[in-house]
Amino acid sequence: MEELTIVKVGGKIVEEEESLKQLLKDFSFIEGHKVLVHGGGRSATRIAERLGIENRMVDGRRITDRETLKIVTMVYGGLVNKNIVAGLQSLGLNAIGLTGADLNIILSDKRPVKNIDYGYVGDVKQVNAELPSELIRRGVVPVLAPLTHDGKGNILNTNADTIAGEAAKAFARYFDVRLIYCFEKKGVLSNENDDDSVIPEIDTCLFEQYVSQGIINGGMIPKLENALEAIRSGVKEIIISHASEIHTGRGTKIR
Amino acid sequence: MEELTIVKVGGKIVEEEESLKQLLKDFSFIEGHKVLVHGGGRSATRIAERLGIENRMVDGRRITDRETLKIVTMVYGGLVNKNIVAGLQSLGLNAIGLTGADLNIILSDKRPVKNIDYGYVGDVKQVNAELPSELIRRGVVPVLAPLTHDGKGNILNTNADTIAGEAAKAFARYFDVRLIYCFEKKGVLSNENDDDSVIPEIDTCLFEQYVSQGIINGGMIPKLENALEAIRSGVKEIIISHASEIHTGRGTKIR
Repeated sequence: MEELTIVKVGGKIVEEEESLKQLLKDFSFIEGHKVLVHGGGRSATRIAERLGIENRMVDGRRITDRETLKIVTMVYGGLVNKNIVAGLQSLGLNAIGLTGADLNIILSDKRPVKNIDYGYVGDVKQVNAELPSELIRRGVVPVLAPLTHDGKGNILNTNADTIAGEAAKAFARYFDVRLIYCFEKKGVLSNENDDDSVIPEIDTCLFEQYVSQGIINGGMIPKLENALEAIRSGVKEIIISHASEIHTGRGTKIR
Repeated sequence: MEELTIVKVGGKIVEEEESLKQLLKDFSFIEGHKVLVHGGGRSATRIAERLGIENRMVDGRRITDRETLKIVTMVYGGLVNKNIVAGLQSLGLNAIGLTGADLNIILSDKRPVKNIDYGYVGDVKQVNAELPSELIRRGVVPVLAPLTHDGKGNILNTNADTIAGEAAKAFARYFDVRLIYCFEKKGVLSNENDDDSVIPEIDTCLFEQYVSQGIINGGMIPKLENALEAIRSGVKEIIISHASEIHTGRGTKIR
C-alpha cells in the first residue's frame, strides 16, 4: 500500500500568521500523500469574546451551545480552514478544506447528556474515507476542520485529536498510515523539566509502566490511549512531535 | 454530454433557517447533476456589526479590508457554506462545500485600485473545473462559496453572481450547463408593478430593445449582460427565476 502521513496541529500554530507559514512550509516538505487536521480553539474563544458570548470549558472541552456552534462553524470551517487551504495552494499543494459534513466524511452522534451537557458536540460514529482516498491518490491534500455532522442537518463540534485518530484508522484501509500529533514539546518527556528527555518509543507495556510511575500524566494519558488504540486498529505508526519536526520524523514513536 | 444545473441563490434565502430548508428541498428535486452557488452578505453584515466593524458598500459591493475579509471568510466559507452542506447531506445529496481556493478551483486577481479601493476583492482569472467535474460525475454536489484565491496565499471576496457565471462557462466544457439565478421575483418583469408580467425569453436583440425602452434597468442590466456573455461562451441556458421555482424550470429564459 502507498503511504499516507496525517498531521494534526493544534490551534496556536495555525492561528498566528508567522507560525502558520512556517508550519505549512514544513508540512509541504513531507514526501508523498498527506492530510492536515487542525484545531482553532483560540480564535474561536477570541471571536466569541468579541461577540459577547461566554466561553465555557470543562476539562479543556468547549461547551457548545447554539451560538457557540455558529462561532466554531465559522472559525474552524471558514477562517482557519480556508487560510490553511490558500496557504498550501500557494506552496503548490492542491489542498481541499473539508469538515465531516463535506462528502459525508465523518458522521457523529450528539454526545448524550450525563453529568455535563456539552451541547452540540459530536462523538465520531463513522468515517467514510473511500472518496477522500481517491482524491488523495490524485494528489489532493485534504485539510480537515474539527467539525462533523449528524446526518440530520446539524454540524457538531468535534475534538481535533479525535478526528485525526478516527481518520487515521479509516484511511488505514487504503494506505499505510503514519499519524503525527504536533505538540509544544519535542515529544513525550521522561522529565518534564528537561525538554530534551524525549522518550523515543512507547508501546502498550511501556505506557502502563510510565503511567504507574507518574512519568506520563494529565492530558497526555488520553492522547496516548487513543494513539495505542489507533495502532491496534491498523495505523502503522504514531509520532508525537514538535511542529518544527513534522518533516524530520523525530519525536516519540508509538507502535 | 450529460446535463448540469447550476443554481445561484442570494444571501437572504440561505441565511434564514426556514427558507433555507425549503430551498434545499426544492434544490434536491432538480434531476441529475447539480451545483449550488450561494451568497451570504446579510450574515456578514450582521456579524461585522456585532464585532463593531463598519460595513462599507459601494454600488452594492462590499469594501473588503483585512478585518472584513476575515468576516466573509468565516461567514461565507464556514457558517453559510457548511450549514448548506449539512442540510443537503440530510436530504441524501453528497454535498461538498468549496471556495475557489479548494482544489484551486477559482483563481482571481485582487481588483486594481482605480477610483475606488475595494480591498481584498477578486476578479476571476481562471476556473479549473476538471476535478470538480469528475466529482460531479461521481454523484457529488459542489456548494460554492463566494470566495476565491490569488494563488499567493490570499483569499479574496468575490461576487457570487460572477462565480456562478464563470463556473457555468468552465463547466460547459464538460456538461450541457443550465444556470439558474434565483431572484425575488418570478423572473424579469416587463412591468415592475405586475409580478406576473414575466418576460418568457430574452436574447441579445430583445435585451437591447428592452434596455432602450427602459423596461430592463438598474442591477438587472449587468446581470443580463453577464448571462448573455455566458451563453456566447457555451452555457446552454440561463433562467432567472424565483427560488421556489428552481425545480420547475419557470422564469425568464436567456438563450
